[in-house]
Amino acid sequence: MKISYEPIGIINTPFKLKKGMPIQSNGAKGIKGTVTVKKEYSEGLKDLEGFSHIYLIYHFHKSQNYSLTVKPFLDNNFHGVFSTRAPQRPNSIGLSVVKLVSVTGNVLEVENVDMLDGTPLIDIKPYIPDFDVFEVEKVGWTNNKTENIDAIKSDNRFE
Amino acid sequence: MKISYEPIGIINTPFKLKKGMPIQSNGAKGIKGTVTVKKEYSEGLKDLEGFSHIYLIYHFHKSQNYSLTVKPFLDNNFHGVFSTRAPQRPNSIGLSVVKLVSVTGNVLEVENVDMLDGTPLIDIKPYIPDFDVFEVEKVGWTNNKTENIDAIKSDNRFE
Repeated sequence: MKISYEPIGIINTPFKLKKGMPIQSNGAKGIKGTVTVKKEYSEGLKDLEGFSHIYLIYHFHKSQNYSLTVKPFLDNNFHGVFSTRAPQRPNSIGLSVVKLVSVTGNVLEVENVDMLDGTPLIDIKPYIPDFDVFEVEKVGWTNNKTENIDAIKSDNRFE
Repeated sequence: MKISYEPIGIINTPFKLKKGMPIQSNGAKGIKGTVTVKKEYSEGLKDLEGFSHIYLIYHFHKSQNYSLTVKPFLDNNFHGVFSTRAPQRPNSIGLSVVKLVSVTGNVLEVENVDMLDGTPLIDIKPYIPDFDVFEVEKVGWTNNKTENIDAIKSDNRFE
């Protein structure tokens, strides 16, 4: 079975290179980007401006291959790719929550972007704390490694 | 540009019909399901059992068409599809956070499932509060509508 998607738009950010990028949107505070949705889908954006935060689901378009075990940016040990957020996944799909600043026609101004410039956008969903905030019991290998994500930037390990 | 994904596995749940389902995983507390990852990807599950909550990204395989404006289950007004979590999206992609109970080989036992039985799985990512919990300023049209999601079930509106 093949699942086939067409980008609904494009994400523009200041990041032209994989190296030196924030590794999560929480480590990209204040970094501005633009989401341009294809004009044919503009009507689908109705009421989106009521939300302060949205999910962007996108394609890691510069990720050519995958590995089943990876050394993620936060650690120097190998972990199964599905227990990481690394881009080298069997299906190269990325997920970020960004701050929505404005919607003008088919263009969204956003903040806290952590993806490459030119990233193809697959979907937008509203972020709703009653649906999306969970109390967890454990965070596996990331325990004690996520507090300083502002300071951690990507390197070339997934080139 | 076409984006092509292959399912990495399948999600089995008690839900054979679209009608009467929980509308979010937070409204599906304790409902058990199984995620069977293809054997060729088993190694990618290494260390996943360390996490109590995971994202499942999946294909709404029973969603044939899309609408740019929809009446979501929580409301009787039309909203742009991207400001809802409705399945009738240009790219029929779904996102749920479920509780991970166990990992045995390539099979995950999970709880809080809100998807149809037989749903094709596209990706798994760990849920990490430091990356995934955001303070929001506003939740748009969903304001005051999300507290009782336990009581709200799907109906046939997206048939």
